[in-house]
Amino acid sequence: MALKLHGVCAILATPFDSQKRVDDSGLRALVDFELRSGVHGITILGILGEVLRLSDSERREITRIVVDEVRGRVPVISGTGATGTDLAIMYSKEAEELKADALMIAPPRLAKPNDDALVKYYRDIAKEVTIPIVIQDEPSTYAVHMSPKLIARLSEIEHVEYLKLEDPPTPIKVSQIRNLIGDKLGIFGGLGGLYAIEELSRGAIGIMTGFAYPEILVNVYESFSQGRRDEARSLFYRAMPLIRYEAQPTINVAIRKEIFKRRGIIKDSTLREPAAKLDSDSLKELDELLSTIDSNILPSESKKISTITKQTNPA
Amino acid sequence: MALKLHGVCAILATPFDSQKRVDDSGLRALVDFELRSGVHGITILGILGEVLRLSDSERREITRIVVDEVRGRVPVISGTGATGTDLAIMYSKEAEELKADALMIAPPRLAKPNDDALVKYYRDIAKEVTIPIVIQDEPSTYAVHMSPKLIARLSEIEHVEYLKLEDPPTPIKVSQIRNLIGDKLGIFGGLGGLYAIEELSRGAIGIMTGFAYPEILVNVYESFSQGRRDEARSLFYRAMPLIRYEAQPTINVAIRKEIFKRRGIIKDSTLREPAAKLDSDSLKELDELLSTIDSNILPSESKKISTITKQTNPA
Amino acid sequence: MALKLHGVCAILATPFDSQKRVDDSGLRALVDFELRSGVHGITILGILGEVLRLSDSERREITRIVVDEVRGRVPVISGTGATGTDLAIMYSKEAEELKADALMIAPPRLAKPNDDALVKYYRDIAKEVTIPIVIQDEPSTYAVHMSPKLIARLSEIEHVEYLKLEDPPTPIKVSQIRNLIGDKLGIFGGLGGLYAIEELSRGAIGIMTGFAYPEILVNVYESFSQGRRDEARSLFYRAMPLIRYEAQPTINVAIRKEIFKRRGIIKDSTLREPAAKLDSDSLKELDELLSTIDSNILPSESKKISTITKQTNPA
Amino acid sequence: MALKLHGVCAILATPFDSQKRVDDSGLRALVDFELRSGVHGITILGILGEVLRLSDSERREITRIVVDEVRGRVPVISGTGATGTDLAIMYSKEAEELKADALMIAPPRLAKPNDDALVKYYRDIAKEVTIPIVIQDEPSTYAVHMSPKLIARLSEIEHVEYLKLEDPPTPIKVSQIRNLIGDKLGIFGGLGGLYAIEELSRGAIGIMTGFAYPEILVNVYESFSQGRRDEARSLFYRAMPLIRYEAQPTINVAIRKEIFKRRGIIKDSTLREPAAKLDSDSLKELDELLSTIDSNILPSESKKISTITKQTNPA
Repeated sequence: MALKLHGVCAILATPFDSQKRVDDSGLRALVDFELRSGVHGITILGILGEVLRLSDSERREITRIVVDEVRGRVPVISGTGATGTDLAIMYSKEAEELKADALMIAPPRLAKPNDDALVKYYRDIAKEVTIPIVIQDEPSTYAVHMSPKLIARLSEIEHVEYLKLEDPPTPIKVSQIRNLIGDKLGIFGGLGGLYAIEELSRGAIGIMTGFAYPEILVNVYESFSQGRRDEARSLFYRAMPLIRYEAQPTINVAIRKEIFKRRGIIKDSTLREPAAKLDSDSLKELDELLSTIDSNILPSESKKISTITKQTNPA
Repeated sequence: MALKLHGVCAILATPFDSQKRVDDSGLRALVDFELRSGVHGITILGILGEVLRLSDSERREITRIVVDEVRGRVPVISGTGATGTDLAIMYSKEAEELKADALMIAPPRLAKPNDDALVKYYRDIAKEVTIPIVIQDEPSTYAVHMSPKLIARLSEIEHVEYLKLEDPPTPIKVSQIRNLIGDKLGIFGGLGGLYAIEELSRGAIGIMTGFAYPEILVNVYESFSQGRRDEARSLFYRAMPLIRYEAQPTINVAIRKEIFKRRGIIKDSTLREPAAKLDSDSLKELDELLSTIDSNILPSESKKISTITKQTNPA
Repeated sequence: MALKLHGVCAILATPFDSQKRVDDSGLRALVDFELRSGVHGITILGILGEVLRLSDSERREITRIVVDEVRGRVPVISGTGATGTDLAIMYSKEAEELKADALMIAPPRLAKPNDDALVKYYRDIAKEVTIPIVIQDEPSTYAVHMSPKLIARLSEIEHVEYLKLEDPPTPIKVSQIRNLIGDKLGIFGGLGGLYAIEELSRGAIGIMTGFAYPEILVNVYESFSQGRRDEARSLFYRAMPLIRYEAQPTINVAIRKEIFKRRGIIKDSTLREPAAKLDSDSLKELDELLSTIDSNILPSESKKISTITKQTNPA
Repeated sequence: MALKLHGVCAILATPFDSQKRVDDSGLRALVDFELRSGVHGITILGILGEVLRLSDSERREITRIVVDEVRGRVPVISGTGATGTDLAIMYSKEAEELKADALMIAPPRLAKPNDDALVKYYRDIAKEVTIPIVIQDEPSTYAVHMSPKLIARLSEIEHVEYLKLEDPPTPIKVSQIRNLIGDKLGIFGGLGGLYAIEELSRGAIGIMTGFAYPEILVNVYESFSQGRRDEARSLFYRAMPLIRYEAQPTINVAIRKEIFKRRGIIKDSTLREPAAKLDSDSLKELDELLSTIDSNILPSESKKISTITKQTNPA
């Protein structure tokens, strides 16, 4: 069975309890919430998942729990990039053994830009696995720039089948890559969904992001892919104030955890340190934005989900 | 007379002709357009003005022309930061001689972070001028990070009276700075206006940006400052799809010049090289966005202005 | 017993076999070699140790083996910094449990410069351990700049007792820090020993580096600390061509592993990927340099050690 | 007449008087000193020349004075790179009009790595000039990385004939480039001469640096190029303590100006701000190093020159 990723792949936050330990039941609650929101895939161990603050055994445990909770209903994509090839291979093989469906692989640390070294890194990892690889093009955190030409080279590697694109301006880069290699890589937009409509219009196959109202993006994506583009655009535009707010550099993880807490999904919005935090005015701004969202944008079904969630996961 | 900057200060693009020479009449047309749009100040020689691609004599000429065209109707703020103190002093004194009303000063290149060197830089410049200084806090281009504590130190320097804040997340930084020094510095938001409402709500005195529909920001600002906050917010949210689109990293100058051309204000959207460019789909995306803006957001008066402009500046 | 670090603390490479697995016997051979060379301490899990390419369990195993092999003859300093506080605490507690004598702690990833976050990071770790902490000031790899003022703040934290200084120009920074806090922190120079004489003259208490001829640095240090400064300087100058050669950015780990192999200490000079490598001319350059070193600089006793080593560890 | 650059091309400092104005007579004295030291070329407006702190008119004036003082005895290479193509063309045409013999062109600011944009930049400049271009590969200041493949592409451009290589490890990069394009570009080493012997051995045609004892490098180069390689190496090794000291990041300009002052060539070692400075111990370190150099390394003829210089330029 050939796995096909597409649509809204929710990047999962890693909930911590007040002692900053991984909160297993919160993690399962997040998975349930995302699935009920209708997402088409779940991505774990990304930047939003605070992967750079997790130990090797925590990475394994999170993969195990999420795969177990998802029970094959949607594909699970596990972040297995590392600061070196051997470590990335180890993470990747572990993820495959734990039944992840695909791997999201960030580039390694490089002393200086080196396309050949990046090709070798992805090639060496790809040799050791049998599941699809999603290249993570996210220069803001990883400080590695991938040109469309390099991405075209990477697309020649067996198992490299997808690209998560977070190198702005993303719409133009979607077109540049597709001009070089057509559909050879399935491209997911990211950046909190900030340019989702433009990315989809230029041929992206989905959105991979941690936006905390995934049901909105699911609606945007489904309207769009079913040909109701004006509806998709209209909904997208109405969600833009919140999308923009969530996308704020350095505090987007804090904002999303806070929203998940306010939505009753997780009990604690704790971040691992060092982490940029919200201030009291941020909470007010968030309340104001969410009330707008609640009254105008959320599809009625989602609202019900939200209510149910609140009952089953009292904060 | 104590000059008081506030409100929407439009950062001016520098129009070039097809030979990439400064287009003097386009520059005057831009000034006229901004004034008719109701802006409260005009900032020249910023990043949007492609200042890093201008010769010393072009800088002088642009300052001279803009001051002449504005004729004192609003303050003119001139960008006079430089890669070294002596050069910044030279630019600053020239700008003052040419009757600029204030100086926007970016930090210098530093081999490594050094707060004391930054304090000395601003102090040394401030000694040589008598007009207000706006600190330009824009780490994305200048690669200098200014902590709230450093900004508080800089606020002690005579003539340092304003801050242009483009270090995201800007809303929280507005509060952090105001918690330290209150109103001692007047803070302008930037970043294309992406967080204007939050910045104003937290005490910013205005928005300094090159957003190509300044009349929208003027309306947002005036509604806000006259206490009609819901109206301000509603207008701001409706403009958000365009604000977000314009704010795309690396291509925002190209987008704005293209809009100014489409609005009939400048004849040529040429950029000086090297410059990231739009592709054909960008132009379609822009048309789509602008048609939405035209039909829903622009105040009727602005539409008239737009029409008049088109007549007097045929593209 | 109050542990006192000083002198030449050798940063240990992590030898890998041809399958890139940690080579336990090579690791023990390296420890023996360093001890016979007369070093005053051994530092593991630094950049030279390719720590960023090691799994959590490999880190533990290396610590365990080295502590076992050293048998208390000199202090063992273990690198336990991490991309987040919780991970650094975990590594630090493990190192203490495994009987490391001190911790070398690199700063965490920061979204933007933030002195307060760095103070909190070191403070939070220090609370969880009882052994001395060496701050690792190495902006080239970790991209965190620590001003003398920040280092003075960090020196107030209990257990923070040493600084490994690799932020050039190091001689001046030694003086700047000592002007602020005197002997409050014991400062080690680094950078391959490139400025060891100047650092010692300005009050550094030792050199922490992976230079592959540690016996030379031991001689420099002991001559210097016993008051024979001209002798120290003369030896240091004669070693300079090699010190400089080893210190080449990106390939210094490769050079040192190659020298250890040529000296008969480890069997394989394999690096974990991605890694900058030597070319065939590098090997010739190295032979030429080493023949100079062998004939002119090495103390006769060291030469014997070298010979013995070659017999017991045939390459 | 085809100009052929080779040998030691001294990068000239820009002397300032105590008011930080360009010191014309100091500039002429520096030129005379370099010529008497036997250099084979003079490079102006480089990083050591504090070019980023100079106005456009100062750049012109310095070019005019140096060309005038050199009177065709050796080639004058003028630094004309800029933050944008149009500015670089302007500087380049001015330099050619002022009779510079070649242009050293640093890459422009780029929002993100972009090889095609770099090729276009050099191509667009090359079209406007008729004299040779030296590519300045110096990522430390300009933050642009040039791969050997990119350099090979640039070597196809008419007038692009030389490369100043300061991307360490330089010896290996010399070989990588020559493996791709043979002698198509003449390669100069830099980095203060730190790897001059290795660079020359691998095929570099000279050393372009601001080392303040150029007569030593001239001797190294001439011994080397006349086949007396052991002599070259021996002299080079003896100079290494000073070469290393001068090469210290951030303070190398300060060190060199201080040496020129101590050698009686310029009156004032003032730097334009912001600039890292020496402390009082640096001056002692320098005295100690220079006394070693004076007694052991300087060829007797150079010593005479030094004495004469001191008489004609009393400090």
